Amino acid sequence: MLGLMQDWPLLIHRIIDHAAVQHGGRAVVSRSVEGPMHRTTYRDLRARALKVAQRLARDGIGPGDRVATLAWNTWRHLEAWYGITGLGAVYHTVNPRLFEDQIAYIVNHAEDRILLLDLTFVPLVEKLAPRLPAVERYVVLTDAAHMPATALRNAIPYEEWIAEADGDFAWVPLDENAAAGMCYTSGTTGHPKGVVYSHRSNVLHALAVNMADCFGLSSRDIAMPVVPLFHANGWSFAFSAPMAGAGLVLPGAKLDGASIHQLLEEEGVTVTAAVPTVWLGLLQHLEATGAGLSTLKRVVIGGSACPRAMTEKFERAYGVTVSHAWGMTEMSPLGSFCSLKPEVAGLDGEALFDLKTKQGFAPFMVEMVVTDDAGRRLPWDGETFGRLKVRGPAVARAYFRGEGGAILDAEGFFDTGDVATIDPHGYMRITDRAKDVIKSGGEWISSIELENLAVGHPDVAEAAVIGVSHPKWDERPLLVVVPKAGREPTREGLLAFMRGKVAKWWLPDDVVFVEAIPHTATGKIQKTALREQFRDYRLPSSTV
Amino acid sequence: MLGLMQDWPLLIHRIIDHAAVQHGGRAVVSRSVEGPMHRTTYRDLRARALKVAQRLARDGIGPGDRVATLAWNTWRHLEAWYGITGLGAVYHTVNPRLFEDQIAYIVNHAEDRILLLDLTFVPLVEKLAPRLPAVERYVVLTDAAHMPATALRNAIPYEEWIAEADGDFAWVPLDENAAAGMCYTSGTTGHPKGVVYSHRSNVLHALAVNMADCFGLSSRDIAMPVVPLFHANGWSFAFSAPMAGAGLVLPGAKLDGASIHQLLEEEGVTVTAAVPTVWLGLLQHLEATGAGLSTLKRVVIGGSACPRAMTEKFERAYGVTVSHAWGMTEMSPLGSFCSLKPEVAGLDGEALFDLKTKQGFAPFMVEMVVTDDAGRRLPWDGETFGRLKVRGPAVARAYFRGEGGAILDAEGFFDTGDVATIDPHGYMRITDRAKDVIKSGGEWISSIELENLAVGHPDVAEAAVIGVSHPKWDERPLLVVVPKAGREPTREGLLAFMRGKVAKWWLPDDVVFVEAIPHTATGKIQKTALREQFRDYRLPSSTV
Repeated sequence: MLGLMQDWPLLIHRIIDHAAVQHGGRAVVSRSVEGPMHRTTYRDLRARALKVAQRLARDGIGPGDRVATLAWNTWRHLEAWYGITGLGAVYHTVNPRLFEDQIAYIVNHAEDRILLLDLTFVPLVEKLAPRLPAVERYVVLTDAAHMPATALRNAIPYEEWIAEADGDFAWVPLDENAAAGMCYTSGTTGHPKGVVYSHRSNVLHALAVNMADCFGLSSRDIAMPVVPLFHANGWSFAFSAPMAGAGLVLPGAKLDGASIHQLLEEEGVTVTAAVPTVWLGLLQHLEATGAGLSTLKRVVIGGSACPRAMTEKFERAYGVTVSHAWGMTEMSPLGSFCSLKPEVAGLDGEALFDLKTKQGFAPFMVEMVVTDDAGRRLPWDGETFGRLKVRGPAVARAYFRGEGGAILDAEGFFDTGDVATIDPHGYMRITDRAKDVIKSGGEWISSIELENLAVGHPDVAEAAVIGVSHPKWDERPLLVVVPKAGREPTREGLLAFMRGKVAKWWLPDDVVFVEAIPHTATGKIQKTALREQFRDYRLPSSTV
Repeated sequence: MLGLMQDWPLLIHRIIDHAAVQHGGRAVVSRSVEGPMHRTTYRDLRARALKVAQRLARDGIGPGDRVATLAWNTWRHLEAWYGITGLGAVYHTVNPRLFEDQIAYIVNHAEDRILLLDLTFVPLVEKLAPRLPAVERYVVLTDAAHMPATALRNAIPYEEWIAEADGDFAWVPLDENAAAGMCYTSGTTGHPKGVVYSHRSNVLHALAVNMADCFGLSSRDIAMPVVPLFHANGWSFAFSAPMAGAGLVLPGAKLDGASIHQLLEEEGVTVTAAVPTVWLGLLQHLEATGAGLSTLKRVVIGGSACPRAMTEKFERAYGVTVSHAWGMTEMSPLGSFCSLKPEVAGLDGEALFDLKTKQGFAPFMVEMVVTDDAGRRLPWDGETFGRLKVRGPAVARAYFRGEGGAILDAEGFFDTGDVATIDPHGYMRITDRAKDVIKSGGEWISSIELENLAVGHPDVAEAAVIGVSHPKWDERPLLVVVPKAGREPTREGLLAFMRGKVAKWWLPDDVVFVEAIPHTATGKIQKTALREQFRDYRLPSSTV
């Protein structure tokens, strides 16, 4: 027996339709890449998205075709997403911070037929274009007046391109499981792998993040996603804000502290989100200028671990509530959000900031477990750490073209590759990447915890910990340190500094000093390269 | 090209699973029908729901079978919903306030195989049982100690019934479009018609109501649905509260002002919802006792129009925010919610209370239009009124067994049977029922507006306005008045009172005085009976 409810598939166009009807005059304010501020509304944005869809159709793009974007957060990028998905095509956000080889690889792997790019990226794309045979047309996200001379194939300024459409177009009917968007993960090894979002997953994910214990946007919020649309599906702001009728402020290409602060204040932003690096820049700007935050209520920090000092500074000095969030490209991306359940709502001072260093708890539609290597579930005691696995309607079941093979376990869980603890209240803390954890005598040692401890030493600029093979314990930790300029930390001094702060058997067996530690394109420590570098390293303890 | 996201159907059991895992210790507090307060948690409630499912299966109930409930809001009723739906069976809430004939009709029409009933309803059901041949077993929602002697077929106390299950049971895998629940609408004419909710519609609807501009429940809320689970799908609280991790307070059979106030205060309720009658009782109790509301932040009022004085009293005297909501059984039920968009957030005083008399705006996943009789869309100017039609994934597409025929228009909209205006900001106001509106000279006159006006006269106890046929104008309004005891209002006096407060052509052509006006079982004015009564009435103007 079936229910007798209407057939109303969860399609992305319904979000902008709703915003245009119920919140049609709400402002979408952008810092344009050309320079000036630009103001539009959801109503007008929808009208232009229809032109994008119509124009794409005229260029021969149809359902399932991929359209790449190499673009900052602006109204044009946003309306392009709606135009592309409203036609049944697939937006493919390309991260311009990737290595050139990676960009060429993913554009070709995705078989992007049209590439939309900001002015910023014209030189980059001109260099890459000879290696992108499948791209039929390059659309530069600007108007004719700002269009640079370029030999890019069929290049056209975006404004001219959509001016050829009158907007008399209807969204294309689709199955809600149809592909809507793509984003490649930048792993530390191998080629990037494509995650393919569906209309359904994006709509359900936006509903999830709009619940009160996540972003919980309302029509009275003005949201500024500093996190780029090309970073992990833009943390859903393109969908969650218009769904809630929240205003949007899009910062374009300028993500420095002063530029961000100007937008926060001038546009009355109430909630914003980005990686810690951005907030470091903002806080430095505030300290340097003595300025404050007059409208901002909430800042969401994700992408990498949020330093405790940053949370304290925002909350104590500026009265802004900080929420740590965690997710992955494979999770659309939100996996957890650190809001306060009533059982911890009474915490204050140090205990509150301790809690806020955790990545938070899973919202409805994210199931989360920690397991050992054999797949056995581990207890939620806040201490036992294991492989973090997730399940839900906005979690990947495979990568594009089957890369990486089967990625779900027998119960349908996706292994995040992270190692984490979950406490009795459900708050999760990432303790390491699974491949970086050091397996010593059947127990696990967190490389990240040791690194965080080591960088607390006044003479250390950067630290990395890797496992090095050991005849008795399988692996033992090796601490690799870049000293601060002019400082000369010693092995014994560092180990003495760390002693007593972790279990004795966690202490590194040795310390080596280097001039630099290798990094990935996105700034993470490249442990694979480090492990390769120290492949033949023999720990002093190995000979015992 | 399909998305590559996990197959994770929207099934109701996932809500209680999430609550048990992430908010497992959260309290579910009930006033039991037996008398004492009862406290449980989402974790324990889920465990008992599994026993319900297991026990139902042992009684031969399977996917698609209907299980009726005649019950107040208590933990047992809630866990029964989860047990029934977790097995793939269908909860069918029966409104005990219906006429006995109607109850017999719907139980037979739904072919309910098992009927769960509160102690309160044993005498009623004993009287009806001979007319309910399909019911195989009656389960009384109590324990052995409170079980009355009864001849009901296979009667068993609920606690004994589920004690025979050990709870070692797994939720049954289902299609998300499978039927989950049923609720019959009590129309003013003809038999009640069955609305059949699906798992998908209930989950999507709970996500919609949990957005910030609707109920927006958080894990820090304690929600008390005074609205009964048998009234329009219980306004989703059974799903929305555990989905958000909000605590629940269930008032059982006692809905008087003093009992409600006691629960609000003792259990620290932050948000509550019910029909205006309940709040009238609470406000009278507060005035009589001088008591206040120390934890309550929000009260949601729906089911019928919320008197402006009630909103003012709650907000001004008790500091509680009132939100008017509107919906229908056919809409799962929420259709609109009167929260404040930024364009009206600056209103205060009279202007704010004016706005708050409106039914509010449609959330995401509810599309709303007003049309004329020919289906042409009418403007959103706050003045033009027309037929209110809705579309969405939690809106009915048909009634059970096809009763009432095709109920959607060519565009897939469901005609609510209401007449409404929508203002430029999207706020909807119900002005009448479509069948009660008076069609005069091609224009519509709202019977409700005239009635509200007439009852403002100090000598009027109750008033009804119906259309009476007219040779020139097609229909003209007739005002039917019940005078207050000892008062003798006159035709001329009433018309003089109304003159100048509505358009001149809206003024009733005549006034008649009666001792009583007929009502439906749910207390609404029965206009069909009134129209029948005045079928041969000739207006004085007819002879002009």
